Parts: sequence; structure tokens; C-alpha cells
Amino acid sequence: MSDRIAVYPGTFDPITNGHLDIIERARAQFGSVVVAVSQNPSKNPLFPLEERIAIAKETTAGMDGVNVDSFEGLLVDYVRARGASALVKGLRAVTDFDYELQMAQMNYRLAGVETMFLVANPEYSFLSSSLVKEVARFGGDVEGMVPPEVLRRLKDRFHGER
Amino acid sequence: MSDRIAVYPGTFDPITNGHLDIIERARAQFGSVVVAVSQNPSKNPLFPLEERIAIAKETTAGMDGVNVDSFEGLLVDYVRARGASALVKGLRAVTDFDYELQMAQMNYRLAGVETMFLVANPEYSFLSSSLVKEVARFGGDVEGMVPPEVLRRLKDRFHGER
Amino acid sequence: MSDRIAVYPGTFDPITNGHLDIIERARAQFGSVVVAVSQNPSKNPLFPLEERIAIAKETTAGMDGVNVDSFEGLLVDYVRARGASALVKGLRAVTDFDYELQMAQMNYRLAGVETMFLVANPEYSFLSSSLVKEVARFGGDVEGMVPPEVLRRLKDRFHGER
Amino acid sequence: MSDRIAVYPGTFDPITNGHLDIIERARAQFGSVVVAVSQNPSKNPLFPLEERIAIAKETTAGMDGVNVDSFEGLLVDYVRARGASALVKGLRAVTDFDYELQMAQMNYRLAGVETMFLVANPEYSFLSSSLVKEVARFGGDVEGMVPPEVLRRLKDRFHGER
Amino acid sequence: MSDRIAVYPGTFDPITNGHLDIIERARAQFGSVVVAVSQNPSKNPLFPLEERIAIAKETTAGMDGVNVDSFEGLLVDYVRARGASALVKGLRAVTDFDYELQMAQMNYRLAGVETMFLVANPEYSFLSSSLVKEVARFGGDVEGMVPPEVLRRLKDRFHGER
Amino acid sequence: MSDRIAVYPGTFDPITNGHLDIIERARAQFGSVVVAVSQNPSKNPLFPLEERIAIAKETTAGMDGVNVDSFEGLLVDYVRARGASALVKGLRAVTDFDYELQMAQMNYRLAGVETMFLVANPEYSFLSSSLVKEVARFGGDVEGMVPPEVLRRLKDRFHGER
Repeated sequence: MSDRIAVYPGTFDPITNGHLDIIERARAQFGSVVVAVSQNPSKNPLFPLEERIAIAKETTAGMDGVNVDSFEGLLVDYVRARGASALVKGLRAVTDFDYELQMAQMNYRLAGVETMFLVANPEYSFLSSSLVKEVARFGGDVEGMVPPEVLRRLKDRFHGER
Repeated sequence: MSDRIAVYPGTFDPITNGHLDIIERARAQFGSVVVAVSQNPSKNPLFPLEERIAIAKETTAGMDGVNVDSFEGLLVDYVRARGASALVKGLRAVTDFDYELQMAQMNYRLAGVETMFLVANPEYSFLSSSLVKEVARFGGDVEGMVPPEVLRRLKDRFHGER
Repeated sequence: MSDRIAVYPGTFDPITNGHLDIIERARAQFGSVVVAVSQNPSKNPLFPLEERIAIAKETTAGMDGVNVDSFEGLLVDYVRARGASALVKGLRAVTDFDYELQMAQMNYRLAGVETMFLVANPEYSFLSSSLVKEVARFGGDVEGMVPPEVLRRLKDRFHGER
Repeated sequence: MSDRIAVYPGTFDPITNGHLDIIERARAQFGSVVVAVSQNPSKNPLFPLEERIAIAKETTAGMDGVNVDSFEGLLVDYVRARGASALVKGLRAVTDFDYELQMAQMNYRLAGVETMFLVANPEYSFLSSSLVKEVARFGGDVEGMVPPEVLRRLKDRFHGER
Repeated sequence: MSDRIAVYPGTFDPITNGHLDIIERARAQFGSVVVAVSQNPSKNPLFPLEERIAIAKETTAGMDGVNVDSFEGLLVDYVRARGASALVKGLRAVTDFDYELQMAQMNYRLAGVETMFLVANPEYSFLSSSLVKEVARFGGDVEGMVPPEVLRRLKDRFHGER
Repeated sequence: MSDRIAVYPGTFDPITNGHLDIIERARAQFGSVVVAVSQNPSKNPLFPLEERIAIAKETTAGMDGVNVDSFEGLLVDYVRARGASALVKGLRAVTDFDYELQMAQMNYRLAGVETMFLVANPEYSFLSSSLVKEVARFGGDVEGMVPPEVLRRLKDRFHGER
């Protein structure tokens, strides 16, 4: 069965186990997933773009059909340039839903680009990159919430030498 | 490109233009869509199962890759029996979201069956089968909300011979 | 200043202080409010239509510009037949909002009839006719939640002779 | 440390692992929890009151400080008659929240009875008694969602002799 | 019929077709609408206040009964100073609703100023000034989402000479 | 009856009557409440930490069993260091709920720390520290929303001499 391509966009600052779960499940549906890391300077990310890309590559290295890329500009332009079939997003909560619904309708209107939503695994429903960073900054243990590569980098970043 | 099969389940009492929009868009993503009409006697449907199936067949007759079927029993068993890749559902509103998220997590837990959500076209975001029936019952004009075959049947049902 | 007419539709089984607050505030905006009591047999009301109308009339007797009526059939037809400018509704909670938004968009689509929403007074935000009946049935004290005429009738209904 | 008593009300038709998680956590907070099973004939329960009580007793038998009881009439009257400090409820989703917030404000207004909310364990966030029954009715496997005593009874009820 | 005045407050950075739809519908209800542009420096607007006012004036020039103004300070003070009957706001989504309900209750408490809500036209339900700016910044086509005057200004602003 | 300790965390910039209501009700449940003021420099508070602590102490001075403290670092570490039984939070609206549910699940996961939620008194459901500051900044009257000590300080801060 030949593949369709889904683009999974985000800041991934850093990638979490919740993201990895969505990537795996999207790959099972589409065959091929592009993890599209956005620059997003307005969010003042903890990890620079290059490191976010590197982390995403390391943590998805074993997954056939998963590629990591970055994008600038209009997301729908990127989706079309990649020849992708759809965007894929994870939904956790109602406030996610309102924002994501607005974005999905806009992207469909702008370019006929479809967004397909997967619901978060309940086990990861409380996870977000920003909450993980906040916890790690104060020395909280985020093992099991992020992959080992991220765990290590968060410790380096917040608690020095190790 | 070979096809994947999505199952689009519902009571379809009757099918609306909102349903047809989701069917068309799901077909574009998966290649093949099974419109799976559930018996659902507890909802006390206006149209008997056979008529709901007949309407769904008529209104999707021109769409390649769309099949209409009915199912009984556990939805995830049906999905597996059909060899389908996923369920597909439309999301309109927050109250939809809460219920659908619960069902999607249950179906994933029961059988690893994935649910992929599409957001309703804004033009149809206020549409539901039950609201259409309520309006038609009192003689309101639902043209543009349902396909012509349904419009005719609603008039027959509620306003006699004509 | 001449008046505009707002139609305030509902089952009013029975009218509560939350309803009366919306009626008073709508009257201040429109000049004239029609409290439109719907038959609504599917809700299996506690008070028959005639009694719901009578209660609404008694409790709004002192309010200039407030009329009580009943309606059957399509609400937008009634609004036009009355020469009203708009529907008016109260909003309390998010689940209200989803349903009311759907109805408002339908009524606008059907007949260009506008719905204007007022938010419930916080003091009454937890009130509903059905909750009041449930509490009164078990002998709970709903004084301050409903007007005296309703308080008396609920006692009669649930706790006999007095 | 002497105990406070929390009343955990519900239909428990049947009790699930989500309920048991709330009971355990409430007991850790209050010292003593009364599982208060309501008759609730309007919900047309699958298990009669006596069986729902029996199941709740069996499944909480090993928990110190947990008692099972039934109640009729106004919940706040029952809370006061038991000398309890508060009601305790679990929150899963936004639609829960709207309804529970309304009930909590009503119960506080009626009798100064406080409701303390715990959020559902993510692992059980998709569980409800009605969904469990629907799945079990069609032969779906609800192991891990309900205690063994309930699993056995659901099989008896829906799938005969064994 | 003499007019009532509604104040429609906002940052209008820039005005969209969704805003214009609410203005038109509010005018039909009240007779007279004041589009009240707030300075709002904390939002770091793209267009300076004077330009936002100028745009609003240009795009509402053909609408009888619509005036454009700016305000500083407390919104309810402005409403009273204008002799207006009410505030008017559009509602699109649940997250809107929570915030707007809080503001409406505060404004009623502060000064008895009523807020009347209209639901967004479904066609514009996904539109916001900030999303329009984000799309336009990256060269996306927002025709049909904003009036021609805004379309031109967005192009000037983001893509230079023309 | 010996006491349990609840930690009530927040920025309290400044404390409002809504906070004081939750403190009082939490104290009635737990016996002892620690009002834990967080530094929270990222929120750019109006009142410095020391003043926020001083205000909280003044306004809770008459309440037995209420202590005011500040904390840095991970909240769950603070809860354990204090030997507290649980966190306590107030819930007002759905957007509160989404965020608070995420935090509660994270804190339970990190350290088994329970969060117990009380629903806001309807009278204070529209209140927040940030809205109070915004109103006071423009000279609006927030009497009845904040304690007298805060009223005085807001006037000093925004309107000088006294």
C-alpha cells in the first residue's frame, strides 16, 4: 500500500511522549509523517530551532516513515510544497479544541488543506511542552513524560554539569 | 495509490449536507469510506433503518469509493470485520467534543481502533439531524441543509401527500 | 421612544427568578417583551400549558411592556407573526452556549431572525426550572429562587393540602 | 487524627474502577467516606438498588473507613443527617463540570453543604457506568475498567448462564 | 421609531468582515451603533489607533447609524457618557464565552451596563484580527475575510511598495 | 478534631473577596489553610511579593487556622515540606477547569499530591485579580470585590496622594 503524507506541525520545545504517541499513531494511518518544527521566535523557545530539530530526529530515529523538517511562513504553503495530504494534530482539552478548530477552518479556507485530529492518549492528556519545562526548571522529575534524550537535555539546561 | 478504508458511523436519521461534506472529505483522505448506519432503536428514529440506508445510498450514489452499510453490536468489532483503518467523525461543538473524545478513547482502549476527527465546515456547523427534523416537522424550509432526496422525504413524512 | 418587541421563548415549567431577571432586563433594552410559552409535550412538563401561562402572567403582572403568550409550531414564524425584532435568551453555562448558538444560527438562517443573548445574573446562574422542581419535590426550600406564586404552587403540587 | 466524613453520591449502576479511585482518594483526604447509592428510578438502572449496594459493598470491603449506604430524598438532608462534612465528586470533562458546578452551588445555597471535587485519574477519564454497560451489552471486554465482581455480573446479565 | 445606541468596543486591529457583520446586525437591532476603538497599547497593535479609526470609518462609511469613535479609561464610563443603552459583542467560541461572560457580569455590577451578545455568522466563526494578521504576514490570501480597504493596507504593511 | 492542612497557592496580586471566600471554606473543611503566595515574576505583578504577603496577612488576620507564607520552586515540594494533605483551588469557569485539571493531574503524577476543588461562590464568579486591577486602574469602583485593605492600596497605587 503506497503512502500518504501527513504534516504534524509544532514548536516541539521540546518534544514530549505525548507528541511521540501522536506521531506513531499518525504514521500508522498515513504511512508517512513529517514532523514540521516551526521557528516560532514569538514563543521565545527554550531550545533553539536546530536543537529542537535534532531532538526530534534523535527521538524518532527508529520510526520508519517519520521525517523531521522545519518550516517558515504559511503552514498551508508548506503542506502543499511537501505534497502532503493533510495536517495532523492532537487534541487534549476543550481550550485546545477551540483554537485548533479555528486554525483548521482557516487552513481549509485558505488552501483546501485538511486537518485530521487524533485525541491524546489519556496517559498523556495532562502533558504539554510548557508544563514539562516549568516542572523541570524547578527540579521536578519528568521521567516518563519525555524521551530520555529530552530528559538529559532538560537536566543539562536547568541544572548544569550533571 | 491503494486505498485505506474509514468507517463513518452514525444514525443518519436522516443524512444531512453536513454528513455528506464529512463523507466527501474523508473519502479524499482515505480513498474509501463506509457509511455505517446503526439501528439505534433507543433513539426512536423517524426513518426506519432500511429507509435510512436507502437515503444514504441515493445521496452518495455519485461518489466513488463510498459504500453504505449497517451494523449491529460493538462498533470496533465492525471496524475490524471490515478491515478498516480507522473511524472518522465530524466535530462541531464543545459538547460534541467531550462525548466524542470519551468514545474515541474507549474504542482505542477496547481494540486499538483509531478515530480521526474532521472539523465541520462552518457553513454546516449548526446542523444536526435532530434539529433538521424539528424544523421540518413545523414546516420550516431546510433546503440547502439536506440533499433533495431528504427534503422530499421530510415533506412526505410531515406534510402528507402533496 | 417607541418600542421594539423581543420574544423570550421557553417552557417556563415553572418560571424562576432567573427568568424574571432576564425579562426585566430585556424589557429595559427593547421596551416590550413577549414571554412565549411553548407547549413542549416532549418535555413532559409538571404544570400544564394553561397553568404555566397563568403563572407567567401573575408574576409579570406589574411589569409594563411585558406580555405573556403561547406558541405552537416554528418559533421563527411566531416571531415574524408578532412583528418582533428579535429573540432574547439568557446564557448561564457553556453547555447552554453550545445549544443556544446552534439554535440561533438556525433561526437566523431560516428567517433572518436575530437572537440576542444576556448573561445570567451570577446570583441565578445555578438556577434552572428542572433543578428547582427536583429540589422542591424532595421538600427543599426554593424560596428566593422562584416568585411567591411559584413557591406556593410547588408546595401544593408536591406536598398536598397545606 | 480523628476523621471527617465525606459523602460520595451516585447511582453506581454499576460501580467502576473510576469510582473506586475517587473513593480511595477521598478516604485519604477525609478519613471516612460514605458511598451513597441513590435509588434514581428515572434513570432506569440496569441493576436494582439492592444489587448496586451489594456490589459497592463487595468492592469496597477491604477499604477501612468506607461505608456504603443508600439515600432517598434531598441529598443535602442526607449529608446533614449523616453528620458529614462535605460531598465529594469526581470531575472528568467539561460537560461534567457545568452540571456539577450548578449542583454544587445549589447544594451550598440550600444548606451550606460544600462539594469538594477531585479530578479523575487520566487512566479512567473516559470511563462512565453507562458507557461500560453499552460496551458490555455488545460483548466488549471491560476488564480493567470495572472490578472483577462487576465484570462477572455484567457477563451474567448480558450473556446468560455460564 | 427612534433609536437606541449600542456601543461595540474592540481593538479592531484591523476590522474584519466578522466585525462588519456584527455592526450591521447590531444596527438593525438598535438603530445606532458606536464602534468604539480602544487604544490598547498592551496588545502592541499592528495599526496605530488613528489608522484603526480611519479604517473603521472607511469601511462603515455607507452604513447609516454607524459612528466610529475611540475611548480611553473605563468602558462603562464611556457607555454612560455616550448615553448608550448597551454594549454589544459577538460570540464565536467557548473560550470567547468564558471571558465575555466575566466582562459582562463585571460591567453590569460596576454600572448596570448591559451587554447583548450576537452569535457570529458561521461563515466568519473562524475569523479573528490576530489570525488574519498572522496569515497576511506570511502572504496568505485573506480576501473575503476583510474589507478591501484592509486587504490593501495589510499588503502594504507586510509586502511593501506594490 | 485534629486538623489537616490545605495549601492554597496563588499569586494573590492582590487578594480578592473571591480568594477570601475560598480560604474560609477550605478552612472549614481542613481546619488549617496555608495561603502560599508565589513570587511569579513572569506575571509582572503590580504588588511586590512582600506587599502581597502583607496584604494576605492583614486580610486573614481574624481567621483562626489560616497562615500566610510564600514559596519558590516546585509547588508539590512545598506541599510536602509543609506536611500538607492537599492543594485547594477555586473553580470559576471552563477555561479555569481545563488548566487546573492539567495542573492537578501533573501534581498527582509528580508526587501523589491531591488537589481538591471548590466552586466559586456565584457572587464572585466573575472576579479575578487581573480584572480588578484593570478596573481600579481606570478609576472603577471595586468595593465589595476586594477587602478594604486592598481597596485602599489600589487607590494609592493608581490615584496617588490620598
